[in-house]
Amino acid sequence: MAAEDKNLVEILEDLNPIDVAKYMNYVSAPQAGAIATFSGTTRDTFEGKTVIELRYEAYVPMAIRCLKSLCSSARASWNLHSIAVAHRLGTVPVGETSVFIAVSAVHRDDALEACRFLIDELKATVPIWKKEVYSNGEVWKENSEFLERRSDLRKDEDFRGKVTEMKEHNRKHCCRPKVQVKDEGN
Amino acid sequence: MAAEDKNLVEILEDLNPIDVAKYMNYVSAPQAGAIATFSGTTRDTFEGKTVIELRYEAYVPMAIRCLKSLCSSARASWNLHSIAVAHRLGTVPVGETSVFIAVSAVHRDDALEACRFLIDELKATVPIWKKEVYSNGEVWKENSEFLERRSDLRKDEDFRGKVTEMKEHNRKHCCRPKVQVKDEGN
Repeated sequence: MAAEDKNLVEILEDLNPIDVAKYMNYVSAPQAGAIATFSGTTRDTFEGKTVIELRYEAYVPMAIRCLKSLCSSARASWNLHSIAVAHRLGTVPVGETSVFIAVSAVHRDDALEACRFLIDELKATVPIWKKEVYSNGEVWKENSEFLERRSDLRKDEDFRGKVTEMKEHNRKHCCRPKVQVKDEGN
Repeated sequence: MAAEDKNLVEILEDLNPIDVAKYMNYVSAPQAGAIATFSGTTRDTFEGKTVIELRYEAYVPMAIRCLKSLCSSARASWNLHSIAVAHRLGTVPVGETSVFIAVSAVHRDDALEACRFLIDELKATVPIWKKEVYSNGEVWKENSEFLERRSDLRKDEDFRGKVTEMKEHNRKHCCRPKVQVKDEGN
Protein backbone atom coordinates (compact mmCIF):
# COMPACT_ATOMS: atom_id res chain seq x y z
CA MET A 1 0.00 0.00 0.00
CA ALA A 2 1.36 3.43 -0.88
CA ALA A 3 1.97 5.87 1.95
CA GLU A 4 -0.71 8.17 0.53
CA ASP A 5 -3.30 5.45 1.02
CA LYS A 6 -2.73 5.42 4.77
CA ASN A 7 -4.17 8.87 5.32
CA LEU A 8 -7.84 9.18 6.26
CA VAL A 9 -9.21 12.72 6.20
CA GLU A 10 -12.87 13.31 6.96
CA ILE A 11 -15.02 16.41 7.40
CA LEU A 12 -18.16 15.25 9.17
CA GLU A 13 -21.29 17.19 8.38
CA ASP A 14 -23.79 15.29 10.49
CA LEU A 15 -24.44 15.86 14.18
CA ASN A 16 -23.13 12.55 15.48
CA PRO A 17 -20.23 12.36 17.92
CA ILE A 18 -16.85 11.59 16.36
CA ASP A 19 -16.21 7.84 16.45
CA VAL A 20 -12.79 7.92 18.09
CA ALA A 21 -12.43 4.13 18.08
CA LYS A 22 -12.87 4.05 14.29
CA TYR A 23 -9.88 6.35 13.75
CA MET A 24 -7.70 4.62 16.34
CA ASN A 25 -8.45 1.30 14.66
CA TYR A 26 -7.62 2.83 11.27
CA VAL A 27 -4.11 3.80 12.36
CA SER A 28 -3.42 0.61 14.35
CA ALA A 29 -1.10 -1.85 12.65
CA PRO A 30 1.25 -4.68 13.65
CA GLN A 31 4.16 -2.61 12.32
CA ALA A 32 3.35 0.42 14.49
CA GLY A 33 4.54 0.52 18.09
CA ALA A 34 3.05 3.92 18.90
CA ILE A 35 -0.22 5.77 18.44
CA ALA A 36 -0.58 9.42 19.46
CA THR A 37 -3.95 11.12 19.40
CA PHE A 38 -5.38 14.55 20.03
CA SER A 39 -9.02 15.42 20.69
CA GLY A 40 -10.24 18.99 20.66
CA THR A 41 -13.49 19.28 22.58
CA THR A 42 -15.97 22.07 23.26
CA ARG A 43 -15.28 23.41 26.74
CA ASP A 44 -17.79 25.17 28.90
CA THR A 45 -16.06 28.51 29.33
CA PHE A 46 -13.95 30.92 27.30
CA GLU A 47 -12.34 33.92 28.96
CA GLY A 48 -14.84 33.75 31.79
CA LYS A 49 -17.90 33.51 29.56
CA THR A 50 -20.22 30.49 29.66
CA VAL A 51 -20.07 28.60 26.37
CA ILE A 52 -23.22 26.78 25.24
CA GLU A 53 -21.86 25.23 22.07
CA LEU A 54 -19.46 25.77 19.17
CA ARG A 55 -20.47 25.88 15.53
CA TYR A 56 -18.05 25.11 12.74
CA GLU A 57 -18.25 25.95 9.05
CA ALA A 58 -15.88 25.18 6.21
CA TYR A 59 -15.54 25.16 2.47
CA VAL A 60 -15.26 21.39 2.51
CA PRO A 61 -13.25 20.64 -0.66
CA MET A 62 -10.61 23.21 0.31
CA ALA A 63 -10.49 22.02 3.93
CA ILE A 64 -9.97 18.44 2.77
CA ARG A 65 -7.26 19.44 0.31
CA CYS A 66 -5.51 21.42 3.01
CA LEU A 67 -5.71 18.57 5.54
CA LYS A 68 -4.31 16.12 2.98
CA SER A 69 -1.50 18.56 2.31
CA LEU A 70 -0.74 18.68 6.04
CA CYS A 71 -0.60 14.89 6.10
CA SER A 72 1.97 14.98 3.29
CA SER A 73 3.99 17.59 5.13
CA ALA A 74 3.95 15.47 8.29
CA ARG A 75 5.14 12.44 6.34
CA ALA A 76 7.99 14.49 4.90
CA SER A 77 9.23 15.29 8.42
CA TRP A 78 8.52 12.10 10.36
CA ASN A 79 8.47 8.38 9.67
CA LEU A 80 4.76 7.62 9.98
CA HIS A 81 2.59 4.62 9.37
CA SER A 82 -0.97 5.98 9.27
CA ILE A 83 -2.73 9.30 9.84
CA ALA A 84 -6.41 9.93 10.55
CA VAL A 85 -7.89 13.43 10.82
CA ALA A 86 -11.58 14.07 11.42
CA HIS A 87 -13.33 17.41 11.95
CA ARG A 88 -17.00 17.98 12.65
CA LEU A 89 -18.96 20.83 11.13
CA GLY A 90 -22.15 22.32 12.52
CA THR A 91 -23.01 22.40 16.21
CA VAL A 92 -20.69 20.70 18.71
CA PRO A 93 -22.15 20.80 22.26
CA VAL A 94 -20.01 21.21 25.37
CA GLY A 95 -18.00 18.08 26.16
CA GLU A 96 -18.10 16.67 22.62
CA THR A 97 -15.13 16.32 20.26
CA SER A 98 -14.88 18.68 17.29
CA VAL A 99 -11.52 17.51 15.94
CA PHE A 100 -9.68 14.22 16.34
CA ILE A 101 -6.22 13.32 15.08
CA ALA A 102 -4.57 9.91 15.34
CA VAL A 103 -1.05 9.14 14.14
CA SER A 104 0.76 5.81 14.23
CA ALA A 105 4.45 5.13 13.75
CA VAL A 106 7.07 2.54 14.52
CA HIS A 107 8.56 4.83 17.18
CA ARG A 108 6.80 7.12 19.62
CA ASP A 109 8.83 10.27 18.89
CA ASP A 110 7.52 10.30 15.33
CA ALA A 111 3.90 9.72 16.35
CA LEU A 112 3.93 12.32 19.15
CA GLU A 113 5.70 15.04 17.19
CA ALA A 114 3.62 14.57 14.05
CA CYS A 115 0.39 14.62 16.07
CA ARG A 116 1.36 17.93 17.58
CA PHE A 117 2.40 19.35 14.22
CA LEU A 118 -0.92 18.34 12.68
CA ILE A 119 -3.15 19.95 15.30
CA ASP A 120 -1.03 23.11 15.43
CA GLU A 121 -1.07 23.47 11.64
CA LEU A 122 -4.75 22.59 11.41
CA LYS A 123 -5.62 25.35 13.87
CA ALA A 124 -3.35 27.87 12.17
CA THR A 125 -4.01 27.25 8.49
CA VAL A 126 -7.00 25.07 7.61
CA PRO A 127 -10.09 27.05 6.55
CA ILE A 128 -12.51 25.83 9.21
CA TRP A 129 -14.34 28.61 11.05
CA LYS A 130 -15.53 28.50 14.62
CA LYS A 131 -18.39 30.41 16.20
CA GLU A 132 -18.58 30.43 19.99
CA VAL A 133 -22.13 30.56 21.26
CA TYR A 134 -22.30 32.02 24.77
CA SER A 135 -25.19 32.27 27.15
CA ASN A 136 -25.40 35.98 26.22
CA GLY A 137 -24.46 36.07 22.55
CA GLU A 138 -22.19 34.56 19.92
CA VAL A 139 -19.00 35.47 18.07
CA TRP A 140 -16.89 34.17 15.22
CA LYS A 141 -13.40 33.55 16.56
CA GLU A 142 -10.62 35.73 15.22
CA ASN A 143 -7.78 33.87 13.66
CA SER A 144 -5.57 34.51 16.67
CA GLU A 145 -3.33 31.49 16.28
CA PHE A 146 -2.11 32.46 12.87
CA LEU A 147 -1.54 36.05 13.92
CA GLU A 148 0.31 34.89 17.04
CA ARG A 149 2.52 32.61 15.03
CA ARG A 150 3.42 35.36 12.59
CA SER A 151 4.29 37.59 15.51
CA ASP A 152 6.34 34.88 17.20
CA LEU A 153 8.23 34.15 14.03
CA ARG A 154 9.20 37.75 13.59
CA LYS A 155 10.42 37.93 17.20
CA ASP A 156 12.30 34.68 17.30
CA GLU A 157 15.47 34.51 15.23
CA ASP A 158 15.69 30.75 15.80
CA PHE A 159 12.48 30.31 13.85
CA ARG A 160 13.87 31.65 10.57
CA GLY A 161 14.20 28.13 9.25
CA LYS A 162 10.63 27.44 10.24
CA VAL A 163 9.46 30.54 8.39
CA THR A 164 11.17 29.28 5.28
CA GLU A 165 9.54 25.87 5.74
CA MET A 166 6.14 27.47 6.18
CA LYS A 167 6.58 29.65 3.10
CA GLU A 168 7.57 26.57 1.17
CA HIS A 169 4.54 24.70 2.50
CA ASN A 170 2.21 27.57 1.61
CA ARG A 171 3.70 27.99 -1.84
CA LYS A 172 3.41 24.33 -2.71
CA HIS A 173 0.11 23.49 -1.10
CA CYS A 174 -3.38 24.82 -0.69
CA CYS A 175 -2.99 26.31 2.74
CA ARG A 176 -2.95 30.04 3.15
CA PRO A 177 -3.45 32.29 6.14
CA LYS A 178 -7.05 31.81 7.16
CA VAL A 179 -9.47 34.54 6.12
CA GLN A 180 -12.53 34.73 8.29
CA VAL A 181 -15.81 34.41 6.44
CA LYS A 182 -18.42 36.59 8.06
CA ASP A 183 -21.55 35.25 6.48
CA GLU A 184 -24.10 36.16 9.11
CA GLY A 185 -23.56 39.87 9.34
CA ASN A 186 -22.68 39.84 13.03
CA MET B 1 -12.68 17.49 43.74
CA ALA B 2 -8.98 17.72 44.65
CA ALA B 3 -6.47 17.53 41.80
CA GLU B 4 -5.07 14.33 43.26
CA ASP B 5 -8.44 12.66 42.81
CA LYS B 6 -8.33 13.17 39.07
CA ASN B 7 -5.46 10.75 38.50
CA LEU B 8 -6.27 7.16 37.57
CA VAL B 9 -3.30 4.78 37.64
CA GLU B 10 -3.84 1.10 36.90
CA ILE B 11 -1.54 -1.86 36.46
CA LEU B 12 -3.59 -4.52 34.69
CA GLU B 13 -2.68 -8.08 35.50
CA ASP B 14 -5.26 -9.91 33.42
CA LEU B 15 -4.91 -10.71 29.73
CA ASN B 16 -7.70 -8.47 28.43
CA PRO B 17 -7.00 -5.64 25.99
CA ILE B 18 -6.71 -2.18 27.52
CA ASP B 19 -10.10 -0.45 27.44
CA VAL B 20 -9.01 2.78 25.78
CA ALA B 21 -12.52 4.27 25.80
CA LYS B 22 -12.70 3.88 29.59
CA TYR B 23 -9.61 6.04 30.10
CA MET B 24 -10.63 8.63 27.51
CA ASN B 25 -14.00 8.93 29.22
CA TYR B 26 -12.28 9.26 32.58
CA VAL B 27 -10.30 12.32 31.48
CA SER B 28 -13.14 13.92 29.51
CA ALA B 29 -14.77 16.89 31.20
CA PRO B 30 -16.76 19.98 30.19
CA GLN B 31 -13.90 22.13 31.52
CA ALA B 32 -11.26 20.43 29.33
CA GLY B 33 -10.84 21.53 25.72
CA ALA B 34 -8.04 19.09 24.90
CA ILE B 35 -7.25 15.42 25.37
CA ALA B 36 -3.90 13.96 24.33
CA THR B 37 -3.28 10.23 24.41
CA PHE B 38 -0.45 7.84 23.77
CA SER B 39 -0.74 4.10 23.14
CA GLY B 40 2.31 1.86 23.16
CA THR B 41 1.60 -1.32 21.25
CA THR B 42 3.52 -4.53 20.57
CA ARG B 43 4.98 -4.29 17.09
CA ASP B 44 5.90 -7.22 14.93
CA THR B 45 9.61 -6.60 14.49
CA PHE B 46 12.54 -5.30 16.51
CA GLU B 47 15.88 -4.68 14.84
CA GLY B 48 14.95 -7.01 12.01
CA LYS B 49 13.81 -9.85 14.28
CA THR B 50 10.23 -11.15 14.18
CA VAL B 51 8.50 -10.43 17.48
CA ILE B 52 5.82 -12.89 18.62
CA GLU B 53 4.75 -11.10 21.78
CA LEU B 54 6.01 -8.98 24.66
CA ARG B 55 5.82 -9.96 28.33
CA TYR B 56 5.81 -7.39 31.10
CA GLU B 57 6.56 -7.84 34.78
CA ALA B 58 6.55 -5.34 37.62
CA TYR B 59 6.67 -5.01 41.36
CA VAL B 60 3.16 -3.60 41.32
CA PRO B 61 3.08 -1.46 44.50
CA MET B 62 6.31 0.28 43.51
CA ALA B 63 5.19 0.75 39.89
CA ILE B 64 1.94 2.33 41.05
CA ARG B 65 3.72 4.61 43.50
CA CYS B 66 6.10 5.70 40.79
CA LEU B 67 3.33 6.34 38.27
CA LYS B 68 1.42 8.42 40.83
CA SER B 69 4.59 10.37 41.47
CA LEU B 70 4.92 11.05 37.74
CA CYS B 71 1.35 12.34 37.70
CA SER B 72 2.23 14.75 40.49
CA SER B 73 5.34 15.90 38.64
CA ALA B 74 3.29 16.50 35.49
CA ARG B 75 0.75 18.54 37.44
CA ALA B 76 3.59 20.64 38.85
CA SER B 77 4.71 21.58 35.33
CA TRP B 78 1.44 21.84 33.40
CA ASN B 79 -2.11 22.94 34.11
CA LEU B 80 -3.97 19.62 33.81
CA HIS B 81 -7.49 18.46 34.43
CA SER B 82 -7.26 14.65 34.55
CA ILE B 83 -4.63 11.99 33.96
CA ALA B 84 -5.14 8.28 33.28
CA VAL B 85 -2.25 5.82 33.00
CA ALA B 86 -2.75 2.10 32.42
CA HIS B 87 -0.10 -0.57 31.89
CA ARG B 88 -0.66 -4.23 31.20
CA LEU B 89 1.47 -6.96 32.71
CA GLY B 90 1.92 -10.47 31.34
CA THR B 91 1.72 -11.33 27.67
CA VAL B 92 0.79 -8.62 25.16
CA PRO B 93 0.44 -10.03 21.61
CA VAL B 94 1.46 -8.14 18.47
CA GLY B 95 -0.91 -5.27 17.71
CA GLU B 96 -2.27 -4.94 21.26
CA THR B 97 -1.70 -1.99 23.58
CA SER B 98 0.63 -2.45 26.55
CA VAL B 99 0.52 1.10 27.89
CA PHE B 100 -2.06 3.85 27.49
CA ILE B 101 -1.87 7.42 28.73
CA ALA B 102 -4.63 10.03 28.49
CA VAL B 103 -4.29 13.61 29.67
CA SER B 104 -6.92 16.34 29.59
CA ALA B 105 -6.44 20.06 30.04
CA VAL B 106 -8.12 23.35 29.28
CA HIS B 107 -5.49 24.07 26.60
CA ARG B 108 -3.85 21.70 24.16
CA ASP B 109 -0.23 22.68 24.87
CA ASP B 110 -0.60 21.43 28.44
CA ALA B 111 -2.24 18.16 27.42
CA LEU B 112 0.23 17.39 24.62
CA GLU B 113 3.37 18.26 26.57
CA ALA B 114 2.30 16.43 29.72
CA CYS B 115 1.37 13.32 27.72
CA ARG B 116 4.82 13.25 26.18
CA PHE B 117 6.49 13.82 29.56
CA LEU B 118 4.53 10.96 31.10
CA ILE B 119 5.39 8.34 28.47
CA ASP B 120 9.04 9.40 28.32
CA GLU B 121 9.38 9.27 32.12
CA LEU B 122 7.43 6.04 32.38
CA LYS B 123 9.79 4.35 29.92
CA ALA B 124 12.88 5.75 31.59
CA THR B 125 12.10 5.36 35.28
CA VAL B 126 9.13 3.16 36.19
CA PRO B 127 10.09 -0.39 37.24
CA ILE B 128 8.19 -2.35 34.62
CA TRP B 129 10.28 -4.92 32.78
CA LYS B 130 9.82 -6.05 29.20
CA LYS B 131 10.76 -9.35 27.64
CA GLU B 132 10.70 -9.57 23.85
CA VAL B 133 9.75 -13.00 22.59
CA TYR B 134 11.08 -13.60 19.07
CA SER B 135 10.42 -16.45 16.70
CA ASN B 136 13.88 -17.77 17.63
CA GLY B 137 14.29 -16.88 21.30
CA GLU B 138 13.55 -14.27 23.91
CA VAL B 139 15.38 -11.50 25.76
CA TRP B 140 14.79 -9.08 28.61
CA LYS B 141 15.26 -5.60 27.25
CA GLU B 142 18.21 -3.65 28.55
CA ASN B 143 17.32 -0.37 30.15
CA SER B 144 18.54 1.54 27.10
CA GLU B 145 16.33 4.60 27.49
CA PHE B 146 17.68 5.48 30.89
CA LEU B 147 21.25 4.93 29.77
CA GLU B 148 20.66 7.02 26.65
CA ARG B 149 19.17 9.84 28.66
CA ARG B 150 22.12 9.89 31.06
CA SER B 151 24.48 10.01 28.11
CA ASP B 152 22.48 12.76 26.41
CA LEU B 153 22.37 14.81 29.58
CA ARG B 154 26.10 14.67 29.98
CA LYS B 155 26.62 15.74 26.36
CA ASP B 156 24.08 18.54 26.26
CA GLU B 157 24.89 21.60 28.31
CA ASP B 158 21.38 22.95 27.78
CA PHE B 159 20.00 20.05 29.75
CA ARG B 160 21.72 20.98 33.02
CA GLY B 161 18.48 22.41 34.33
CA LYS B 162 16.68 19.22 33.38
CA VAL B 163 19.29 17.15 35.24
CA THR B 164 18.64 19.18 38.35
CA GLU B 165 14.89 18.70 37.92
CA MET B 166 15.34 14.97 37.51
CA LYS B 167 17.57 14.71 40.56
CA GLU B 168 14.98 16.62 42.52
CA HIS B 169 12.27 14.29 41.22
CA ASN B 170 14.29 11.20 42.13
CA ARG B 171 15.16 12.50 45.57
CA LYS B 172 11.59 13.36 46.47
CA HIS B 173 9.77 10.46 44.87
CA CYS B 174 9.97 6.71 44.48
CA CYS B 175 11.49 6.58 41.04
CA ARG B 176 15.08 5.50 40.60
CA PRO B 177 17.04 4.31 37.61
CA LYS B 178 15.49 1.02 36.64
CA VAL B 179 17.34 -2.11 37.70
CA GLN B 180 16.61 -5.07 35.55
CA VAL B 181 15.32 -8.10 37.44
CA LYS B 182 16.57 -11.28 35.86
CA ASP B 183 14.35 -13.85 37.45
CA GLU B 184 14.43 -16.59 34.85
CA GLY B 185 18.17 -17.28 34.65
CA ASN B 186 18.43 -16.47 30.96
